[in-house]
Amino acid sequence: MADVPARTEMRVTTGPIRGSRKIHVGPLKVAMREIDLEPSSGEPPVRVYDTSGPYTDPQARIDIMAGLPALRRDWIMGRGDVEEYDARAVKPEDNGLKGPDRTGGVQPFPNVIKRPLRAKAGGNVSQMHYARRGIITPEMEYVAERENLGRARLAEYIRDGQSFGASIPDYVTPEFVRDEVARGRAIIPSNINHPESEPMAIGRNFLVKINANIGNSAVASDVAAEVDKLVWSIRWGADTVMDLSTGRNIHDTREWILRNSPVPIGTVPIYQALEKVGGVAEDLTWEIFRDTLIEQAEQGVDYFTIHAGVRLAYIPMAAKRVTGIVSRGGSIMAKWCLAHHKESFLYDHFDEITEIMKAYDIAYSLGDGLRPGSIADANDEAQFSELYTLGELTHRAWKQDVQAMIEGPGHVPMHKIKENMEKQLQVCGEAPFYTLGPLTTDVAPGYDHITSAIGAAQIGWYGTAMLCYVTPKEHLGLPDRDDVKVGVVTYKLAAHAADLAKGHPAAQVRDDALSRARFEFRWRDQFNLSLDPDTAEQYHDQTLPAEGAKTAHFCSMCGPKFCSMKITQEVRDFAAKKNQPADGFLEAGLTGAEVAQASKDAALKGMEEMSKLFKETGSELYMGAGGRDHD
Amino acid sequence: MADVPARTEMRVTTGPIRGSRKIHVGPLKVAMREIDLEPSSGEPPVRVYDTSGPYTDPQARIDIMAGLPALRRDWIMGRGDVEEYDARAVKPEDNGLKGPDRTGGVQPFPNVIKRPLRAKAGGNVSQMHYARRGIITPEMEYVAERENLGRARLAEYIRDGQSFGASIPDYVTPEFVRDEVARGRAIIPSNINHPESEPMAIGRNFLVKINANIGNSAVASDVAAEVDKLVWSIRWGADTVMDLSTGRNIHDTREWILRNSPVPIGTVPIYQALEKVGGVAEDLTWEIFRDTLIEQAEQGVDYFTIHAGVRLAYIPMAAKRVTGIVSRGGSIMAKWCLAHHKESFLYDHFDEITEIMKAYDIAYSLGDGLRPGSIADANDEAQFSELYTLGELTHRAWKQDVQAMIEGPGHVPMHKIKENMEKQLQVCGEAPFYTLGPLTTDVAPGYDHITSAIGAAQIGWYGTAMLCYVTPKEHLGLPDRDDVKVGVVTYKLAAHAADLAKGHPAAQVRDDALSRARFEFRWRDQFNLSLDPDTAEQYHDQTLPAEGAKTAHFCSMCGPKFCSMKITQEVRDFAAKKNQPADGFLEAGLTGAEVAQASKDAALKGMEEMSKLFKETGSELYMGAGGRDHD
Repeated sequence: MADVPARTEMRVTTGPIRGSRKIHVGPLKVAMREIDLEPSSGEPPVRVYDTSGPYTDPQARIDIMAGLPALRRDWIMGRGDVEEYDARAVKPEDNGLKGPDRTGGVQPFPNVIKRPLRAKAGGNVSQMHYARRGIITPEMEYVAERENLGRARLAEYIRDGQSFGASIPDYVTPEFVRDEVARGRAIIPSNINHPESEPMAIGRNFLVKINANIGNSAVASDVAAEVDKLVWSIRWGADTVMDLSTGRNIHDTREWILRNSPVPIGTVPIYQALEKVGGVAEDLTWEIFRDTLIEQAEQGVDYFTIHAGVRLAYIPMAAKRVTGIVSRGGSIMAKWCLAHHKESFLYDHFDEITEIMKAYDIAYSLGDGLRPGSIADANDEAQFSELYTLGELTHRAWKQDVQAMIEGPGHVPMHKIKENMEKQLQVCGEAPFYTLGPLTTDVAPGYDHITSAIGAAQIGWYGTAMLCYVTPKEHLGLPDRDDVKVGVVTYKLAAHAADLAKGHPAAQVRDDALSRARFEFRWRDQFNLSLDPDTAEQYHDQTLPAEGAKTAHFCSMCGPKFCSMKITQEVRDFAAKKNQPADGFLEAGLTGAEVAQASKDAALKGMEEMSKLFKETGSELYMGAGGRDHD
Repeated sequence: MADVPARTEMRVTTGPIRGSRKIHVGPLKVAMREIDLEPSSGEPPVRVYDTSGPYTDPQARIDIMAGLPALRRDWIMGRGDVEEYDARAVKPEDNGLKGPDRTGGVQPFPNVIKRPLRAKAGGNVSQMHYARRGIITPEMEYVAERENLGRARLAEYIRDGQSFGASIPDYVTPEFVRDEVARGRAIIPSNINHPESEPMAIGRNFLVKINANIGNSAVASDVAAEVDKLVWSIRWGADTVMDLSTGRNIHDTREWILRNSPVPIGTVPIYQALEKVGGVAEDLTWEIFRDTLIEQAEQGVDYFTIHAGVRLAYIPMAAKRVTGIVSRGGSIMAKWCLAHHKESFLYDHFDEITEIMKAYDIAYSLGDGLRPGSIADANDEAQFSELYTLGELTHRAWKQDVQAMIEGPGHVPMHKIKENMEKQLQVCGEAPFYTLGPLTTDVAPGYDHITSAIGAAQIGWYGTAMLCYVTPKEHLGLPDRDDVKVGVVTYKLAAHAADLAKGHPAAQVRDDALSRARFEFRWRDQFNLSLDPDTAEQYHDQTLPAEGAKTAHFCSMCGPKFCSMKITQEVRDFAAKKNQPADGFLEAGLTGAEVAQASKDAALKGMEEMSKLFKETGSELYMGAGGRDHD
């Protein structure tokens, strides 16, 4: 795993993930990884979904200043429905600078495309528009191959899960992808000006996806750190990345990120718009916002978070909350509405925003500006009122064939999670749900990646399509690269736990391969199959670092005499040696099932007797002189 | 937080937890903690459940060589039903030593009690026996006070949860505790030879509890490290601790732990028995095991894990598993049964074991030796057959008024978790359930505290009474003290999330206090109210270390301009200044609720129109010349 220095101060992590081999599958050369196992296992390589892009491909030449190859350009041009045009000129305020001399700024990306693409006049280049016209795009084909992980079409899969009414196919065809996108149940975020992206789908009937947040703030971080975080986050499994920068150099930072990102990039355009008006929310205007949308569309942002559901009438509902409005964008819009005594300009101009989205194929992430920021505020009136408006807006977007997903909470105790999924399905026409956790308790800052993994795994199981990660730094500060990794791996395991519970046919392959490796003491295979091979090996080696330990039939948890797996092996060997079938050593008489049934009968009989005793003694277990004076 | 050196090489962490003040409540001086908040908040101190014992009490004088005060001794003696007797002599093999000269051993605890207690001939000193005779013991009174956290008896609590049929009272009376213990739905593990323990209850209708595992292995750790881990684990919230030592000096290590533990201690006696026969499972005998039970009972172990459910007839069921038998005790018994062609001696001698338990008040932890160790093995025949036997054994224990709880899995995907709870309730008469996680996926060694926190929170919500922690080192090696802390805090938050979801009346107080502190930028209060104040502050200070930042209305996540909570404050101030009630700025016309309803109607109408369109176009969204050649 070598760090290849780019020709600026920027450094990103490259080289294969330990134990994995990059492969490219099919005519579209869909990127995946394979994990080879020890020959003694007799097992084939395990294929896993891969978000890390060319950075983990030893064949790829990485040059951060040049950006990634424009993988999708031929497909985009081949559709014949776009035109080049002169980009909007970058203004100093796009970077929070005072003048055009870039004082205090950063080096801009050296290979900016001066003539971006957009739909020919009046056209619509969204994947949904193609899908609804019955067209299967190369993006849809790529997605199908990617989601299948190369599994055989006619294999029989043991489907064992509870998906609460989802429609997960045994095998994903490009036609299935087209149909899901057409009906709005999945999106493929893929701005025509971000041709470097490897297509992916977000939808309930596909693998659960995760998003990592990067971006600077006024207080911390810089461009080089953010590019590093991008590459680091996708290395560990982030399916999309949001650039949530709120500090300096927002435009330039985003350019570096987009040109070097193989995953879709999302933003919240209101942040940059606020920077342009010097941080004074009241000074925001529709025109400045619109201009910002164009600016970001030309760079290639794949989805926009738009808080059009924070409506004037809803703001008083947040007044009685414990933590008010915790969404940055939501609070900014609330301030604007209040100051102007007017309906949100995002709501009022929604259809015009949609017109812009369709010309570039930018997907909506309909923002949950009124999400609950504490257990006390969960599932309240403000939250669900906004959800209803997001439902209305989903259908308005769909009227123009523009892709949309719906953002969700937040802080929700476990017993209130399912209601969120049910309401969202009800009013948003099964558009993909994209939640932030939810956190299931407020009492553990420093551990909120865990408080939220609990909620995220559950809501992913219930049908949420993408989970936005939370790092250990949540509520406390800006995450560094270590936090980013912990957040990503935590959310990968939560998403995978959801896939398992939903009965996704491809999910359990990896768990089973790792468990077999564990049982057979193939330590290297166990590490290589895990989500974070480096940490797994490092933890093992803290107490048993010698190479010989990698084939030892124990670890330091129990030592050689007490390792249950070792003992189980001995039990099996013993039975084999005695030439006995597994149950050959039983005495003639009861089978295991009969023994178990006898125990169960005895248990239930014991309970009946207890109940009788309760009733006889007047439902109190008093035998003797019990006083009730302590009552 | 000072480390007070004991008069050996042993060192434990003492001193208050940051921000907390130790208090003792009521006539029994029940130990709890209070967290004082900033005077500007106008809020009373928050009282929290406390497991840390005298170590966090600045008034207490800690002397590891003397042990803790015998808190319960007067209560035990006052019942007049016990006698002192000469202890069984400690033998070299109790410590895995070769001869009586203790070569290779460790310093024994200097103040061993030579004359332990036991019930007078034929007597029964279990809390269940007293409860069934209508007696409310001081232990039950202590538990009631402790579970109430000092809340007022007549306060009205907004009960908001889903407890799946539990019976959680608004206010816990000693009579309620007695009734729960009498019917077996709760246990108070409290060996008469462990008078140092602060009484606690494990049961579905009380706060969800957690257990931490400590103990050496043949490969790692020593007595000093284990005593340090004990004190460290209870500092952070472990309600009970199991000493799972499998290496040298098992007897002496346990003595140091018991004499210094304010929480109940559990063990798995088969480990020490196996050490006594040199690690050869086939050489185990009932006599050696019985002797080990007496040895440990005299020291004061509060609960024994007994794998009496691993029956001869069940062992073949494990043959087809991916990970066989993952329980150390289960695999040891399987080996013995197979070698001898006989039913488990634990099962055959169960009633005799119960006779021993009742003479000391040791609770059963009926072991899940056949728990699944991989997703593939979850909820299989072996696992549930053993559960049925554990049900049978529960009732046999209850026939002798001996307390019992039931151990549970393991590795279980989310959709299979509830079945475990339902079956256990069905056959075990609502005896407390005590699970290890469960882990909800196998793919993340290094992160198994998180894969299992997801399952633990859910099964705790469904009714599990105690959750056995999992550390980041699970499957990889023996945990060190950092791992112990991470495991404990992770499981505390999972247990708390379960209490919230169950609607426990006292649970949300802490979340709300912390959220208010967060909203009002009372950073110190936020840290002090969290489960791990040190880490929360440390993470905050990584980017904003200056003292002034502790009252700043932002952190480095967003900076001052973008902090949503700051902006929300401004919104509220603005509305107040305008002398407007919260909704006073709305135009005459629709209320918030009416606006929301209009959105909802529009959304549902949009969906109807979409359905109609689907039907009209033959349930395909083909408009135009779509080919199906990609199918």
